[in-house]
Amino acid sequence: MQINRQRLLQDLADLGTIGRTPEGGVSRPSWSEADLEARRWLMARIQAAGLTGRVDGAGNIFGRWEAGGPVVLVGSHLDTVPNGGTLDGALGVLAGLECLRRVKEEGIRLRHPLELVAFTDEEGAFGGFFGSYAFAGKLTHDAIARSRDVQGRSITEAMGHVGLDSAQALSDRRDPADIRAYFELHIEQGPILERQRASVGIVETIVGIQRFGVTFRGRADHAGTTPLQDRKDALMGAAELIRRAHDLILTEGTPASRVTVGFMHVKPGVPNIVPAEAYLTLELRDVSSAKLEQLQARSRDLVHRVATEWGLTSSIETILNINPVPLSTDLQQAIQSAADELGCSTMRLPAMAGHDAQVVGSIAPAAMIFVPSRDGRSHSPAEFTSEDDIDRGANVLLNALLRCSGT
Amino acid sequence: MQINRQRLLQDLADLGTIGRTPEGGVSRPSWSEADLEARRWLMARIQAAGLTGRVDGAGNIFGRWEAGGPVVLVGSHLDTVPNGGTLDGALGVLAGLECLRRVKEEGIRLRHPLELVAFTDEEGAFGGFFGSYAFAGKLTHDAIARSRDVQGRSITEAMGHVGLDSAQALSDRRDPADIRAYFELHIEQGPILERQRASVGIVETIVGIQRFGVTFRGRADHAGTTPLQDRKDALMGAAELIRRAHDLILTEGTPASRVTVGFMHVKPGVPNIVPAEAYLTLELRDVSSAKLEQLQARSRDLVHRVATEWGLTSSIETILNINPVPLSTDLQQAIQSAADELGCSTMRLPAMAGHDAQVVGSIAPAAMIFVPSRDGRSHSPAEFTSEDDIDRGANVLLNALLRCSGT
Repeated sequence: MQINRQRLLQDLADLGTIGRTPEGGVSRPSWSEADLEARRWLMARIQAAGLTGRVDGAGNIFGRWEAGGPVVLVGSHLDTVPNGGTLDGALGVLAGLECLRRVKEEGIRLRHPLELVAFTDEEGAFGGFFGSYAFAGKLTHDAIARSRDVQGRSITEAMGHVGLDSAQALSDRRDPADIRAYFELHIEQGPILERQRASVGIVETIVGIQRFGVTFRGRADHAGTTPLQDRKDALMGAAELIRRAHDLILTEGTPASRVTVGFMHVKPGVPNIVPAEAYLTLELRDVSSAKLEQLQARSRDLVHRVATEWGLTSSIETILNINPVPLSTDLQQAIQSAADELGCSTMRLPAMAGHDAQVVGSIAPAAMIFVPSRDGRSHSPAEFTSEDDIDRGANVLLNALLRCSGT
Repeated sequence: MQINRQRLLQDLADLGTIGRTPEGGVSRPSWSEADLEARRWLMARIQAAGLTGRVDGAGNIFGRWEAGGPVVLVGSHLDTVPNGGTLDGALGVLAGLECLRRVKEEGIRLRHPLELVAFTDEEGAFGGFFGSYAFAGKLTHDAIARSRDVQGRSITEAMGHVGLDSAQALSDRRDPADIRAYFELHIEQGPILERQRASVGIVETIVGIQRFGVTFRGRADHAGTTPLQDRKDALMGAAELIRRAHDLILTEGTPASRVTVGFMHVKPGVPNIVPAEAYLTLELRDVSSAKLEQLQARSRDLVHRVATEWGLTSSIETILNINPVPLSTDLQQAIQSAADELGCSTMRLPAMAGHDAQVVGSIAPAAMIFVPSRDGRSHSPAEFTSEDDIDRGANVLLNALLRCSGT
């Protein structure tokens, strides 16, 4: 049994028109008008397929085939970053939908029901993982209260706008005993599969992330009258840290280690005043908890050492701390067997981005299947995966689902 | 003849209450309410002293003692940076006022009239040097049209608010033949006099400034999925430039060379996206035109080299280009003689900040007298000069003015 390639590609094309940008990407931040349209569109597709549709208190959308015991769950998310690609999230949801349709069309009797899910706000318009956190019982009143978009609109307001009560997300956690397995098909978003000429990636671990806010404080001085040797230039500390943190990761990290300074702000921010303060975000990623802890400790040392060298003071606040999540080895084996049966070349690799699977994986066996991303590009209109790779990935997903739902 | 020390100190204290900040500094950006109050206060002091007060089309305030031929001009500015000190600018204006008062009180007959001036917007709320540019005939319609504060309010609007027509500034240039000399007493704003234990600085040259906007452009990439080696991280180029420009000045510059990166902005500015663009201001200063040109050429090379090394593109736009201004050697000698007569220790030094004297100096003989700044601090509530140093500086100014106005 194979998926219906043309139907899946048509679904991807149709969903890709919702939130289309002039640059050829899509913008569907969670609870935006485009996201709402995508939600309505998906629910219509679920009902058209004869599946049982449902929306939970977090706004997660489900489509189920057959009732009964623990389910084999499959899905991803519909929301996107601003001007993102058409496959990130959408592929996992629509390939899952296609798998359920095929099973129903073929009249296959399963021992475990199949259930499709599209999680709310994976990308973080309101902070990220709202839907999967609620599903996994990891949401709190405080976290809901803190969830705001960049315009300051609360998720409570955004959900209220469409008649949902955000507090309801707290009571709709799913019993872990009800989940036999979770599968998520996703674009790799990196260059590894393409470079290794592998069609299917089997994810072993989802990366851990530690994100810090680092502040260097020096002294505002006149850019003319203050000799370089007399300055306490906060930006020099920041520049030195950026360069040396890069070298630190290259020398002490692994191929799965990352450091990124993505945001930076200088005060007072005037061309002729020596910067008194420089704030930057420093983000570390690794698939190994031990390595991540080591890089974190070395980075903290580096901040303090650099501050001392430049006559500055420094402070570090933790913004985000997500542990690496190892995925189910049983499910990895099921994917391997499925790919082998279909003659697809595979490789094991880590997921270097965050995914709903890391949240679901904390309460139930979870697995991810990756397909190649051209040039490793994502979160951009340049995101691209060939139709053949999409087809192969979806068929491996279908085969693996059937293995786990016990035909 | 000596200045009236207590009267000068009281004037400084009184003016220092106008625009007072909670931190103990003063905020009198040009054409702010506090600046307007300071202007009214000064005009009242000029009139109370029996001097002839006048405001020109640029808002420059004058006070004159005796009519007739070419004048010996003395002054500085009333406006301040936000939360600046009470002496920067104010000292030159009020010491000048005190000198004119003493000459009048003593009934001294001068061959050349003395004229006090307080120039408009030296500090740059609307770009800087508006008053001295107008005075020296260096203002243009375009420059007026471009003059806006950080809130976007035009200087035309700001001046119109108090009944002045900014276009009038173009017709009030002063005939250079009418200026025999310009003297400006100012705090050093640097640490040199204090370190050398000299009471009075005689300025030889006012620093040249070249200010550039430098943009590095790379590629926005996912902070997790993109290995460090595959990135085109614009911020890495910026960090490398900041570090290496510093080293460049230390190795190839002179003690009067400066480099400052005071402003920086990163796009898209998100913690988990590799920066696609980094913009920064790079400011070079030197008292030697040749050295400044050399450092400018080497800095441009550095920008291009760094961009190439990190796989980026770069562009450089010139924001400001002010040549070094050598001050009158005759007037330096007059100040030297005055200080010698009063038994003040002196040293020659450059002015590393911009001053109205550099603009007036382009059309007439100009001179600057510096007094020590504690720890070299300025543009800050920490700005401080001892009362004895203020007194000595004002007396040297008075003596030098008398030498030039031909008693």
